[in-house]
Amino acid sequence: MSVSEEVLDACEEVAERVAREAGAVILNAIGSTKKKATQTKTSDADLVTETDQECERIIVRRIKERFPDHRFIGEEETSETGVMPVLTDEPTWMIDPVDGTTNFVHGFPFVCVCVGLCVRKRPVLGIVYNPVMGEFFKAREGRGATLNGNRIEVSGTSELGQAVFATEIGTKRDQGTIDSTYGRVSALTSLARSVRMCGSCACNMTGVACGRLDGFYELGFGGPWDVAAAACIVTEAGGKVLDPEGGPFDVMSRRVLATNACLDAEMSRVLSGVPPGPSDPPPPKPNGIAC
Amino acid sequence: MSVSEEVLDACEEVAERVAREAGAVILNAIGSTKKKATQTKTSDADLVTETDQECERIIVRRIKERFPDHRFIGEEETSETGVMPVLTDEPTWMIDPVDGTTNFVHGFPFVCVCVGLCVRKRPVLGIVYNPVMGEFFKAREGRGATLNGNRIEVSGTSELGQAVFATEIGTKRDQGTIDSTYGRVSALTSLARSVRMCGSCACNMTGVACGRLDGFYELGFGGPWDVAAAACIVTEAGGKVLDPEGGPFDVMSRRVLATNACLDAEMSRVLSGVPPGPSDPPPPKPNGIAC
Repeated sequence: MSVSEEVLDACEEVAERVAREAGAVILNAIGSTKKKATQTKTSDADLVTETDQECERIIVRRIKERFPDHRFIGEEETSETGVMPVLTDEPTWMIDPVDGTTNFVHGFPFVCVCVGLCVRKRPVLGIVYNPVMGEFFKAREGRGATLNGNRIEVSGTSELGQAVFATEIGTKRDQGTIDSTYGRVSALTSLARSVRMCGSCACNMTGVACGRLDGFYELGFGGPWDVAAAACIVTEAGGKVLDPEGGPFDVMSRRVLATNACLDAEMSRVLSGVPPGPSDPPPPKPNGIAC
Repeated sequence: MSVSEEVLDACEEVAERVAREAGAVILNAIGSTKKKATQTKTSDADLVTETDQECERIIVRRIKERFPDHRFIGEEETSETGVMPVLTDEPTWMIDPVDGTTNFVHGFPFVCVCVGLCVRKRPVLGIVYNPVMGEFFKAREGRGATLNGNRIEVSGTSELGQAVFATEIGTKRDQGTIDSTYGRVSALTSLARSVRMCGSCACNMTGVACGRLDGFYELGFGGPWDVAAAACIVTEAGGKVLDPEGGPFDVMSRRVLATNACLDAEMSRVLSGVPPGPSDPPPPKPNGIAC
């Protein structure tokens, strides 16, 4: 199914409004005790809060009111049902009401709302809003990416030795996963300027989009809601979004490499050389979806 | 030599003024091309910029005008002479004009000015100002710690499994150092909720002071200017500053563990169990300086 520019205009308007509304809820809650009402999903490292659930309800309700035929893949809904919906060609919203929930609970400032829209399995609209730092990233396919209304672009760093990359360690704590995670980060660190781990997949990706970071990769993050919106922003800022081993990006694969337009080949070469861990999702099949 | 409260009042007033002045220079430069004029100190990972040098000149000149007898230990001055001054009982200012120089160069928001004062080898006054995020941390011995004028305190997290800790990988890229660095972080990760690496020692320490982080450690950072101001802030916020192996903190040792008042024993037990690397500074002798 194709979607007209007029419908996408309306999607953009609604997405921006719900992201700001959810952001206000986050900003209000981060300074209160409300955020303390945490439930662990699967472990002490994997959290969900009342704010996650409240923000998801707000966002989904507003979008459904306007676009009753559109589909949804969201973190909180999926974790309640335990079933990951199949991605089709239909317009599908991918929502993470609070990306960086651990940061939110601890008051660390890398926290954002992600509202992404895929059409024909491609991210065509993305908003990543960090209300704590007052940063509103937005992109729409073919129209460029902005931060607080100003055009952004990826860095021009062309040497890995002068690059700052980011990654995350995820929520698994078995020794095999920790060894493979640190195997990858150690291999890249030995060749790079530095590494950052700030606790939000989408904030890392928008960091690449605006040139603060030169590359980011992660394997085994929560789901497509963590990356869909930000993938559109990175691409529209002139960056590349790929599988960490260099193949095409599949938004459903729980694997991502986002770089400026210079470092993707060298980063994927290093990442491909590290043996996979027990929790690593497998690379997508050759017919993966190019971003 | 002891210093009267009246002199410390004057020190606090001057320190606050110079930190704000240097912060304005950083904020102006981070958005311009001026920051690009980088020189590598020893490697691609170890940077200095014109802004570092300009801010140090401003800070040292202003303090010397007011306190001509005070001593100084600063990053840029020390790296020019190649000699680390000996710390005495005299009032000694420890200045890092730009902590997080790599972040500054890349536009990543964890960047701060550090102005600390030691008397009798103890940090008694500290200011850490992040002009990008608009966060001004201040503490004076016995008077508590503040963020933008509001009292702050460390977290109450008492279980390592619910703790977010921070560390940094430093600027050495030999395999032995990388292995020992990731050996430590991996050992702690397997027991903790999560880990952050944001590229500024002082920002990590103030993160502990205001409860965003539950612990931070680093071995082999640049020098005492990275930790003196922030050590006073952590202590005055109710936290502990120690050697990573649990002994007393020595501001000159290039080794630090900063925690809330609950996690120091468990963190130092884990860190003590990891073999040291070739670049790790040795633990201070038993007569180290308690913070």
